[in-house]
Amino acid sequence: MKVQTLKGFRDFLPNEARKRQYVIDVLRSVFESYGFEPLETPALEYEEILLGKYGEEGDKLMYRFTDLGDRRVALRYDQTVPLARVVAQYGNELAMPFKRYQIQPVWRAENPQRGRFREFLQCDIDTVGVESLLADAEIIACTTTAMQRLGFNSKKTYTRMRINDRSILDRLAGNEITALDKLERRESVVMGLVKRGVNPNRAQWISDYLGKAKRTSSLETLFNNLKDFGLKEDFDYTFDNTLARGLDYYTSIIFELELMIETKREDVGLSVPTRVFSPKLSLGGGGRYDNLIGMFSGKPIPAVGFSFGFDRIIEAMETQNLFPAELVGTKVLVTIFSPELLNKSTEVASTLRTKGINVELYLNETVKLEKQIKYADKKRIPYVLIIGPDEAKSNSATVKTLKTGVQQTVPQEQLEHVLD
Amino acid sequence: MKVQTLKGFRDFLPNEARKRQYVIDVLRSVFESYGFEPLETPALEYEEILLGKYGEEGDKLMYRFTDLGDRRVALRYDQTVPLARVVAQYGNELAMPFKRYQIQPVWRAENPQRGRFREFLQCDIDTVGVESLLADAEIIACTTTAMQRLGFNSKKTYTRMRINDRSILDRLAGNEITALDKLERRESVVMGLVKRGVNPNRAQWISDYLGKAKRTSSLETLFNNLKDFGLKEDFDYTFDNTLARGLDYYTSIIFELELMIETKREDVGLSVPTRVFSPKLSLGGGGRYDNLIGMFSGKPIPAVGFSFGFDRIIEAMETQNLFPAELVGTKVLVTIFSPELLNKSTEVASTLRTKGINVELYLNETVKLEKQIKYADKKRIPYVLIIGPDEAKSNSATVKTLKTGVQQTVPQEQLEHVLD
Repeated sequence: MKVQTLKGFRDFLPNEARKRQYVIDVLRSVFESYGFEPLETPALEYEEILLGKYGEEGDKLMYRFTDLGDRRVALRYDQTVPLARVVAQYGNELAMPFKRYQIQPVWRAENPQRGRFREFLQCDIDTVGVESLLADAEIIACTTTAMQRLGFNSKKTYTRMRINDRSILDRLAGNEITALDKLERRESVVMGLVKRGVNPNRAQWISDYLGKAKRTSSLETLFNNLKDFGLKEDFDYTFDNTLARGLDYYTSIIFELELMIETKREDVGLSVPTRVFSPKLSLGGGGRYDNLIGMFSGKPIPAVGFSFGFDRIIEAMETQNLFPAELVGTKVLVTIFSPELLNKSTEVASTLRTKGINVELYLNETVKLEKQIKYADKKRIPYVLIIGPDEAKSNSATVKTLKTGVQQTVPQEQLEHVLD
Repeated sequence: MKVQTLKGFRDFLPNEARKRQYVIDVLRSVFESYGFEPLETPALEYEEILLGKYGEEGDKLMYRFTDLGDRRVALRYDQTVPLARVVAQYGNELAMPFKRYQIQPVWRAENPQRGRFREFLQCDIDTVGVESLLADAEIIACTTTAMQRLGFNSKKTYTRMRINDRSILDRLAGNEITALDKLERRESVVMGLVKRGVNPNRAQWISDYLGKAKRTSSLETLFNNLKDFGLKEDFDYTFDNTLARGLDYYTSIIFELELMIETKREDVGLSVPTRVFSPKLSLGGGGRYDNLIGMFSGKPIPAVGFSFGFDRIIEAMETQNLFPAELVGTKVLVTIFSPELLNKSTEVASTLRTKGINVELYLNETVKLEKQIKYADKKRIPYVLIIGPDEAKSNSATVKTLKTGVQQTVPQEQLEHVLD
């Protein structure tokens, strides 16, 4: 038997799992601060709930099977259709507007490639039951705050929301919108469209048309609201009439969050000492979709939401060095000097834990101190604590800082201040 | 189409989801304080990794199917077999001892009944690679701390670990051990065994034998270690030679966590003013299993662990009223007095959020104040904030406490102290 995971599926060992948990914790706390509430739905649903809701491709990529009770079931494919089911199923139990966040894995049998997985975490915020564009503005403000709290507001990187109104694209044909959606960020519109099969004259017309396209009244209202929320135009958000996304789904405002990275000035041919930032990749997207949430309720229910690209955010934070240095869990290894002094070590370990310090006790009372210290080093635990006969007598402990090799003996009640 | 969830599967609406998240957060922080590290494994594994590892019943209840690439796959059934796979797959990448916690859903096609679900959260801590019983003691100490941190250390309830050594049961036949395992907590051993098909003479012999059974040397060592960890015998833990669990799995020490509830003295026929606690139900179990983790590694690897009964803990906390009152997320609803004053409301909302207060902004700028306040009431948000023209002029805000109806107008910079 080959000991392996399935293609497109991942284990997360402690270092990775901790980073993911950190991002989830930050996002959750920002979502809660805006009044979004947690929702969890099952991994498996009746197939008929999910089937046909994600187009042909969705039906193809969905994990579906017959269970032991001969029911056709399917694994969660996104979190929006389950949200629609919840809204229909619980009706008046949910106070409207229903503002929920949901952070759960979904499964799609995609062809695995860089950054694409068959199991991945989705992280969504949605406001259900509000027609006012205030809800759209709030979703964008909450997303911006979340990204800032993750550290995307440094001198070298920030995020910006590209915003458009899909009604601007109503004069384009479906294939033209799809081509537009696939444009690379730095590609010229005309050349990009032609490359994707649009007739050159038509491509030129589209480019001219978009170039002249003005903000709709929805966009005007939204942008005023965004100012009220304290967001800065062209920094936090920007009007981009070439933005096209999920158009079988969104009904009005659409937006996409782009990661902005400081670019070397040489690369853009500038000699003036200005900071230049370029869009690097999309970290998520959203918009208003007023026809979807009501699908099981038999009536239209307005909704607007944003879906964070969790894996891309992790990757960007890695590249931009945004994870806090002290994310490693264990602060100190408490060694065991001898079996007779074991209780001294467990006692100090317990006390430190009640003070909120993460402590690992060495789990073999007969191993030489030297080997215990080596273990701490291998696990990158910053401090080692030794309680020998002298320390035990004087209620003190010797602290060794592994990075520097410095050792000091301090009273036990002062330990928490030394282990900073 | 019937809008419903599958039998045995659950949605968690905000109030439930928050309670679950609270328990997870507390457990995680205690696990980390003992040096346990997070691990995540995929929901789907190759079927051959899981098949045959959980006995006949496991193979029967496992969700298994053929995926689009014609691979036989299975949904996670527990977290121990995946842990064994991880240990084999990553080998030296993992520093030994490997102490990990894992909190993920598992799926079992059980017949749903009260407290049994087809999708449920497992929450495990395990120490891999340590032969010393110090590891067993630490698992028990960590579990005890976790339960105390959840509030199971009140005047009315606490938890106690029943501990046994499976070698004590070696003189019993398999069916006798199974019968013993199924005994209700208050049932007499003889009658319980007879009821479950054991010959009366033999049942009497077993009862006598267990009555005389002494602690093994492993138990002596463990109990000494538990004292070193600061745990109190007969309160935090107790020797129970009738404890029998998962005996095809565990190799030495076994334990089970029982919820102790204060019992009315009348019920136990006592007239003296002593507090009496009775065991109510099991909240989880564990033990040492030295033959399992090495199954994919081709060598024996010692291990000891504990699995928390997550749903039962939630239920017990509910019954015992252990959830903090302030678990409800949103503290204050910021109303919108008029479209012109919208920016004043968003501004105050933003400031309060940066101070760590969860704020919901009312998402319709044209609705009467009265209706906005009703909404806060329905959602049980404790405070409502109003910024009208007078307040805007004087940089103040009016705070209404919904429970009492009391209203006060305070400077905006003092708001955080009023919203306690």
